[in-house]
Amino acid sequence: MPVSAARPTIPTERFAARLAAAQAAAAEAGLDALLVGVGPDLRYLAGYRAMPLERLTLLVVPAAGRPRLVVPRLEEDPARRSAAGAAGLVDIVAWDETDDASARVAAIVAEARSGPIGDLAVSDTLWALHLLRLQAALPDARFSLGSAVTSPLRIVKDAAEIELLRLAAEAADRVVEQIASGPLVGRTEIDVAREVRDRLVAEGHESAEFAIVASGPNSASPHHEPGERVIAAGEPIVLDIGGLLGGYASDITRTIWVTGGDPHRGPDDDFRRIFAAVRQAQSEATAAARPGVRAERVDEVARSIIEEAGFGDRFIHRTGHGIGLEAHEEPYVVAGNETPLSAGMAFSIEPGIYLEGRYGVRLEDIVVCTANGPVALNRAPLDLHVVAG
Amino acid sequence: MPVSAARPTIPTERFAARLAAAQAAAAEAGLDALLVGVGPDLRYLAGYRAMPLERLTLLVVPAAGRPRLVVPRLEEDPARRSAAGAAGLVDIVAWDETDDASARVAAIVAEARSGPIGDLAVSDTLWALHLLRLQAALPDARFSLGSAVTSPLRIVKDAAEIELLRLAAEAADRVVEQIASGPLVGRTEIDVAREVRDRLVAEGHESAEFAIVASGPNSASPHHEPGERVIAAGEPIVLDIGGLLGGYASDITRTIWVTGGDPHRGPDDDFRRIFAAVRQAQSEATAAARPGVRAERVDEVARSIIEEAGFGDRFIHRTGHGIGLEAHEEPYVVAGNETPLSAGMAFSIEPGIYLEGRYGVRLEDIVVCTANGPVALNRAPLDLHVVAG
Repeated sequence: MPVSAARPTIPTERFAARLAAAQAAAAEAGLDALLVGVGPDLRYLAGYRAMPLERLTLLVVPAAGRPRLVVPRLEEDPARRSAAGAAGLVDIVAWDETDDASARVAAIVAEARSGPIGDLAVSDTLWALHLLRLQAALPDARFSLGSAVTSPLRIVKDAAEIELLRLAAEAADRVVEQIASGPLVGRTEIDVAREVRDRLVAEGHESAEFAIVASGPNSASPHHEPGERVIAAGEPIVLDIGGLLGGYASDITRTIWVTGGDPHRGPDDDFRRIFAAVRQAQSEATAAARPGVRAERVDEVARSIIEEAGFGDRFIHRTGHGIGLEAHEEPYVVAGNETPLSAGMAFSIEPGIYLEGRYGVRLEDIVVCTANGPVALNRAPLDLHVVAG
Repeated sequence: MPVSAARPTIPTERFAARLAAAQAAAAEAGLDALLVGVGPDLRYLAGYRAMPLERLTLLVVPAAGRPRLVVPRLEEDPARRSAAGAAGLVDIVAWDETDDASARVAAIVAEARSGPIGDLAVSDTLWALHLLRLQAALPDARFSLGSAVTSPLRIVKDAAEIELLRLAAEAADRVVEQIASGPLVGRTEIDVAREVRDRLVAEGHESAEFAIVASGPNSASPHHEPGERVIAAGEPIVLDIGGLLGGYASDITRTIWVTGGDPHRGPDDDFRRIFAAVRQAQSEATAAARPGVRAERVDEVARSIIEEAGFGDRFIHRTGHGIGLEAHEEPYVVAGNETPLSAGMAFSIEPGIYLEGRYGVRLEDIVVCTANGPVALNRAPLDLHVVAG
């Protein structure tokens, strides 16, 4: 692929709109401020990417007034260059090495409000290190999860975000095809996982985030950690891989069967049976993901097909998760999630069946809900890949 | 280097000893339990590596009784295969997709204690998502930082850990030498940063964690984010790079000057002056890092040299940080840290001088405090690298 293919960027006006929407939502929720640490919410609201570390970086979005980005002095320059910093959408407040950063935040929050501090929301991935210090610095405040404010914004993707998800999905598709074309038999899982990571980057991801290579009986463990097991002819491999491209996540799962070139080492009947059930569940759940349908309903569709096939108790995880700046985010496609799907939502559909001690099957596409119905971003074939390997 | 060089592994007995020590420390601190989420404390205590995600993974170490590792059902198998899981040092408790994981933890904690729940410590990198849910599930508990328990254990490295830090340091040394040998002039910072990441992995790191390539005036920003700036002849580059090798962090900084092959484009007198001050500060601070010396004293040594040179206000960060399973951990080499150094502690010594709008200099080694005095793990020369680039 052309790694240098033009990628959409998020224009400055979008960050202004996102910050304004977050502020409005915080005010609406009765919050005094939304406190956003390093992580996906900070990338979403300010276009600022930093490493989560022991020094506090915190975007303070008060219910009214200017947002401030509190950063360690030695990161003042990158903060000023961030999308929100460069556009003057936030004031930068730099703290010095021996300052009490939490006290600085407490003062800013207090100043933003006339009465006693009441309600604050913190971003979901803020470290306990920072949250406990903020709780100590603001003993009268009630703390809640920032996702209550940011998820309803992030859950609906705009055109540029969908395009980045599409580019990420297509890059991951290419890696699946490359890996499926072998060689595989005789190699260790961890060696193949290394190749997956290299190829994810070669195909345009800025980072490889995970590479599940689960062979033979290991394919019955949904989040198998690739190890020293040597892949043999006559067994399946569940490949579940993903990375970040332009800040947006890819995540695809395909199940392949390696014969070693021996036509007698193809999939057995039981395997074909569970594959067919997962294939149908994936397909019908995808078709069900239309605007207005509740997320839990999509899970039900997949689950009922697998139950009918007799493997309900072997489908031990939810059907899917939202995807965007995070590999897992809202909307979760899980029992109990009554969120109605709407156009612009992006999520995985990934049913699986796991027969402990034998093997497992999982198939996953990233799907976007559009006004015209579901659109799968992945294009790698979903049918059983029987390959020499 | 031989990437396949034998690497020490942490033997099972060490995990047993670490868990026992954490339990004893928790009891001693009057805690009912230590709650350890995905992250460095979990790798330290259980040898279990997982991705930090929205599903709760939590090692519960009660003040007395068996530790339990609470994991999502679909990660039961990797949890059982972890060092602590495989050795039977912890009981695995798997929760299902629609279970309330925090309620499960609350029940386990309650069961471990006869009276009302009092004091719990949580690992520093636990997400707010999980901490706020645990606080809600255990409304009568007081929560404190788990580092109070784990840092005193992790701060002193054993022989295998020092060996892994040494291997990581030497791998990073090689990358610095490779990058310094060019080509550099005419390339963008981000392109060089990409090469750094590739080389960190090629030299044996399992992951590249950061690659600061700060050229010309950008070298005055300590945590510069590499960008599209094209490196020119006649300017410095601060290279600050690191990754993880065998789970342990590397972190090295060297400042080089690129001439483009033109002897007239060498460093000017001001640059030589600040380089000499940083060089001396780095060297004397390292020499000061002997057992019994307080961490803040090492910072003072570096700072006083830079102050005497007239650049005290341009040294805008602490002198260093501990290193191990995290790139930044205790002991911090900073004013106010009265911790006495002792044999087995590992930390960076990295003074710098930053002249905004012009350039900057930083030099960093990883240093281990031994009974016989400080030992630098990095071997790349600290003197000014003047290269064609």
